[in-house]
Amino acid sequence: MMTKAYGAHAGDRPLEPMEITRRTPGKHDVQIDIAYCGVCHSDIHQARSEWAGTLYPCVPGHEIVGRVAAVGSGVTGFQEGDLVGVGCIVDSCQHCGECDDGLENYCDHMIGTYNFPTPDAPGHTLGGYSQHIVVHQRYVLRIRHPEPQLAAVAPLLCAGITTYSPLRHWQVGRGDKVGVVGIGGLGHMGIKLAHAMGAHVVAFTTSESKRDAALALGADEVVVSRDAEEMAAQSKRLDFILNTVAAPHDLDAFMALLKRDGTMALVGAPASAHPSPQVMNLIAKRRGIAGSMIGGIPETQEMLDFCAEHGIVADIEMIRAEDINGAYERMLAGDVKYRFVIDNASLAL
Amino acid sequence: MMTKAYGAHAGDRPLEPMEITRRTPGKHDVQIDIAYCGVCHSDIHQARSEWAGTLYPCVPGHEIVGRVAAVGSGVTGFQEGDLVGVGCIVDSCQHCGECDDGLENYCDHMIGTYNFPTPDAPGHTLGGYSQHIVVHQRYVLRIRHPEPQLAAVAPLLCAGITTYSPLRHWQVGRGDKVGVVGIGGLGHMGIKLAHAMGAHVVAFTTSESKRDAALALGADEVVVSRDAEEMAAQSKRLDFILNTVAAPHDLDAFMALLKRDGTMALVGAPASAHPSPQVMNLIAKRRGIAGSMIGGIPETQEMLDFCAEHGIVADIEMIRAEDINGAYERMLAGDVKYRFVIDNASLAL
Ligand SMILES: [Zn+2]
Ligand SMILES: [Zn+2]
Ligand SMILES: [Zn+2]
Ligand SMILES: [Zn+2]
Repeated sequence: MMTKAYGAHAGDRPLEPMEITRRTPGKHDVQIDIAYCGVCHSDIHQARSEWAGTLYPCVPGHEIVGRVAAVGSGVTGFQEGDLVGVGCIVDSCQHCGECDDGLENYCDHMIGTYNFPTPDAPGHTLGGYSQHIVVHQRYVLRIRHPEPQLAAVAPLLCAGITTYSPLRHWQVGRGDKVGVVGIGGLGHMGIKLAHAMGAHVVAFTTSESKRDAALALGADEVVVSRDAEEMAAQSKRLDFILNTVAAPHDLDAFMALLKRDGTMALVGAPASAHPSPQVMNLIAKRRGIAGSMIGGIPETQEMLDFCAEHGIVADIEMIRAEDINGAYERMLAGDVKYRFVIDNASLAL
Repeated sequence: MMTKAYGAHAGDRPLEPMEITRRTPGKHDVQIDIAYCGVCHSDIHQARSEWAGTLYPCVPGHEIVGRVAAVGSGVTGFQEGDLVGVGCIVDSCQHCGECDDGLENYCDHMIGTYNFPTPDAPGHTLGGYSQHIVVHQRYVLRIRHPEPQLAAVAPLLCAGITTYSPLRHWQVGRGDKVGVVGIGGLGHMGIKLAHAMGAHVVAFTTSESKRDAALALGADEVVVSRDAEEMAAQSKRLDFILNTVAAPHDLDAFMALLKRDGTMALVGAPASAHPSPQVMNLIAKRRGIAGSMIGGIPETQEMLDFCAEHGIVADIEMIRAEDINGAYERMLAGDVKYRFVIDNASLAL
């Protein structure tokens, strides 16, 4: 099946319209008409080959929502017309310990939604800046939000699960004081989710101008991290910190805010290294620095259901596919509240 | 009470004999005749003012064993003649959350055995390179090992608890594969303890010459960390790593050996920073880097009892007090298997 898409032919060229093919659905496949696709920072890195190994043409997009158009004969959980989502993962080995534990995101053979090897043409996966996608049912999520929220659900498939998974893994809940560092696409979801889990949320931003917005998202306190006094007032107060900032920065300033046995989970990998964190900050209070990457398929479904139940969606700005290059520039300038979402109907024109 | 001691009058001077005073035992105090005192790397750093703020005269030593000589009227757990130990902690606030949890080591007002403020002369605490010490009963440990092992028990009070506490905290046990990095004073205890806890122990050393010694200590495998092939063979195999090396080194090489959700606990703080660890190593398998500092008083007692039950002591080389400066030089050259212990009777002469 031919399908219209938006993608890059090289790292130094803007994204442009293109036609790609999708495989005929196999026995376990779900064919999806994509309604909306969120725009993640990873899309920019990949399209521009800022990470090693981008394969071209590159069609980004891993915050995909839409409707089931067809299903293979072996598909049991979905039928035509269902509202569904696809996130960062479209395949994995399905038989390792990670897959068995529902943590396909940590499978050594995880296949990402774009730029990973596939038998399908052109030999690597192509993402959600396209009209259709065909995905094995294991990696398709059910969406229970009301349909008018569908566009704002899209970013849950990456930004949502990337923040939900560590909050759950480190058992954030009522009575906990949780820091969320960075108030962007990931951070704004982290604030909403931690708040909905019952935690006392302290949002950290470098910019005074985001104070009111963070409170509106559900933060109980907002700290401007450049203000030494405000930072000192949080010393040893936090049970957990979700750090969404991928730019290299001083981790020690945040580690010092953790109580004994507190963990700071990093969900962004910087292109160049953070300044080396001080070991004494770890040792003195048995603190930890950990990482977390997206989430498994069962917990992605759990997250979507949690969000539907709590009325949580992303704050989005809708764009047409042809606006994508300008949207990238605005994202790099930090000028979006908080996620661009492509209206994939615009691809048909 | 006057007592003979060995200490430094300045950071650039060798340790020499001196006389210090100990307070008259108060209601809750235990007065101890020190039989032996282990020699820890921290002693060198402190005596030489390689850490900020050494107060002189400096009498190091926080691996203290001996016999109770007298007790205050309020002392309930000890009586004259008991075999006892004192580790790195001689006081704390006794009423914070950490103290209430028996984790006096993480109390913000912990008083270390040397170089911490005290109302006693000369205004800072003086350690175990001395004939006697007077310590609040809360910080005195009971020793249940047979008396002939007493000298070899001394290093358990710092090297033992520093390695025992993280192994217990991260729940090392039967079925786990545990890495121990560094085979020195701390590492040799880490190997013995992890082995006794039932783990499969992989010891990491930079020197081929330590292979047999590590196996003799209880390691199931020994990896020379400079051998890329040996390291690669351990990739993603370890549940937990106890890293005892305080010298700055590449943490990434070890992080890559952890399974998903594995933690590497650092128990040494380097004087200058480690190379900044790669965040991708953390994110890709939800791994963590944590720190751990000594251990609480109840778990120190638990460790001593565990060691008595399993027949575990340190491997030591006994020295006389006047040998201490030469011992420091040998420690810095890595020339000790694995802990020097001062025979404090030599102070009397
Ligand atoms: Zn993403
Ligand atoms: Zn797998
Ligand atoms: Zn020590
Ligand atoms: Zn305390």
